[in-house]
Amino acid sequence: MNTELIYLDHAAATPIDPRVLAVMQPFFSDDFYNPSSPYSPAVNVRRAYDEAKHTLAQVIGAKPDEIVVTAGATESINLAFNGITGHVVVPAIEHHAVLAAAKLHDHTIVDVDERGLVSPDSIKKAIRPDTCLVSVAIANNELGTTQPLRDIAAVIKNEREARLERGDKTPIYFHTDASQGVGQIDINVARLGVDMLTLNSGKMYGPKQVGLLWAASNITLTPLIVGGGQERGLRSGTENVAGTVGFAKALSLATEHRKFESERLTGLRDSLQQKLFDAFPDAIFSGHHKHRLAGHLHISFPGLDGERLVFTLENRGVLVATGSACAANKGTRSHVLVAIGLAPEVADGSLRLTLGHLSTEENTAHAGDIIVEEVRREYARIQS
Amino acid sequence: MNTELIYLDHAAATPIDPRVLAVMQPFFSDDFYNPSSPYSPAVNVRRAYDEAKHTLAQVIGAKPDEIVVTAGATESINLAFNGITGHVVVPAIEHHAVLAAAKLHDHTIVDVDERGLVSPDSIKKAIRPDTCLVSVAIANNELGTTQPLRDIAAVIKNEREARLERGDKTPIYFHTDASQGVGQIDINVARLGVDMLTLNSGKMYGPKQVGLLWAASNITLTPLIVGGGQERGLRSGTENVAGTVGFAKALSLATEHRKFESERLTGLRDSLQQKLFDAFPDAIFSGHHKHRLAGHLHISFPGLDGERLVFTLENRGVLVATGSACAANKGTRSHVLVAIGLAPEVADGSLRLTLGHLSTEENTAHAGDIIVEEVRREYARIQS
Repeated sequence: MNTELIYLDHAAATPIDPRVLAVMQPFFSDDFYNPSSPYSPAVNVRRAYDEAKHTLAQVIGAKPDEIVVTAGATESINLAFNGITGHVVVPAIEHHAVLAAAKLHDHTIVDVDERGLVSPDSIKKAIRPDTCLVSVAIANNELGTTQPLRDIAAVIKNEREARLERGDKTPIYFHTDASQGVGQIDINVARLGVDMLTLNSGKMYGPKQVGLLWAASNITLTPLIVGGGQERGLRSGTENVAGTVGFAKALSLATEHRKFESERLTGLRDSLQQKLFDAFPDAIFSGHHKHRLAGHLHISFPGLDGERLVFTLENRGVLVATGSACAANKGTRSHVLVAIGLAPEVADGSLRLTLGHLSTEENTAHAGDIIVEEVRREYARIQS
Repeated sequence: MNTELIYLDHAAATPIDPRVLAVMQPFFSDDFYNPSSPYSPAVNVRRAYDEAKHTLAQVIGAKPDEIVVTAGATESINLAFNGITGHVVVPAIEHHAVLAAAKLHDHTIVDVDERGLVSPDSIKKAIRPDTCLVSVAIANNELGTTQPLRDIAAVIKNEREARLERGDKTPIYFHTDASQGVGQIDINVARLGVDMLTLNSGKMYGPKQVGLLWAASNITLTPLIVGGGQERGLRSGTENVAGTVGFAKALSLATEHRKFESERLTGLRDSLQQKLFDAFPDAIFSGHHKHRLAGHLHISFPGLDGERLVFTLENRGVLVATGSACAANKGTRSHVLVAIGLAPEVADGSLRLTLGHLSTEENTAHAGDIIVEEVRREYARIQS
């Protein structure tokens, strides 16, 4: 990218890390073989693919044959929901992919609090005797709020045990969309207590159009895409070797540097937050102060037009989002901000600032100064 | 790849053309933005994506908004079949993806002749009043036999008109899987007479894990993957910008050089064919002598073990296939060879030799000599 630009939209997309691209390159034009071909150069490609899946599994604390590599988080989420025959429970602030997949089933949408927190108790109340799936994202992509997955997992475990006790064999599973926050929070599936987990390579400095669904070995998935029988019959089509090798490298790097990077981003983010609230004491903070992704800051300037701000900031070289990229593109108000009860005049003046690899102390401070100037100018403009 | 190897398996996988990789590179780490983001660097990414779709559409004689970019041919095929509620008709030699998708519906599998040719009359006989979809691959991936799509399209058009005349509104569509043969045969959708067409970037020197489904504008597809509403709601998930830009370049190159490349490959293939049949007059040719992909040669050596031959040839640096890569990997006999009625002892001694960009006059001639030597050695071995 243009080095004069300051990118504060890491939650929308991340560049491929050069170290990731380096491990992918051989598979583009040299080791291009079909991993199902029998000769040894193809067998080597298969081995590289299998090793990448092994790495992906290892990082999340799972087994390779519990992982289905997909073309991204949206496909993974659809796959997780595909075999479900009963009722599903999802919070109102889930990504559109989860909401859309849920709406293909009998579903209950659970409210969240004003910080975007999903309470385990609200999940408990929404669970019915025929509930088969609860899906809660590990972190919200607009607010950055991270969810108490372990506590929600305990609710689901209790329900499962209660069903077993009364001889009811209706299964109930817990899926999390962990697309946001890899490299900032722990995604070990056992520690999270989930049964299924979705990851998105394109949000962690890996190649786009690659993702995975992990499903515990007791879960029977129903394929969305049938054919040659790849991925144990759960996702047919020639395997994405370059993409999967890159994904594995990206996930390894993200996990390896998680502690350092979270602390670094928290520091940068907190300084930015301080600067903006010092300048605008009436600005509204959204999200959870404590349970939040390290790089995330959601701030609203009541009365201003967030979309206009995005463009004035772009003119100054600062790239920010108003909400999620999807919603922004459609010109509709973010369903997340509606769900947390943000007043329309506040919601419409929102910026989502997300820091990441491209953020430095210097460019974050500089961006903060520019945002202060532009927000001041906008307030002056509308008051004149 | 190792330049000492001679690759005769272009139907299984193709390397990314350096010109294709060159147009993809900027989108990996520089222009990595989410095409749905509002700032201008992202809008430029969106524009590149739209231009690539425009190119894809133009090459096949369609409109950009009739195209859904997918993660490959298998997904495209599944999408084509997904909305179908009635009966479907497919030939017995279709790719596993088509057969598996068909089997999710009430279906009729149509026989082919010993050359792998699908007769329009057999399709006509299989069509029932509730038939909604006929799917015939433009060329078979094992035999290379190309199908009389225009004549089959005429059968379907007749059926459609007959239904209209009697006031029957049951739709009937014609889909072709054109994964094989791009760059060797014409894929203009109007000239083919099809209603839906699947393409696979990974088989035409483009990036893997990218494909498309073209569907005429009167067709209502049912999405396999729901969410953010990308691709007009027909395939959600962040768009694969690098992949689609590469796919468009690959398709353009393939079409541009089609005439020259087909003639070149036909020449090489015919020399190879001549050499092998001169040396082994009892070898069995499969496929259609005339209606066949330029680079394709299917030959069987009765009594020999094709899988063993693959390995002895690999030891001599020649990479060939026994059948389709999928079937080879499972150790089962090819359903295509069963369908054309090849005797088991002939089928088991089969090689599929597919030429392409990596084939030269010199390396093809050299490969031919090596195949002759190794087949001779194998016959000597089993006769001793």
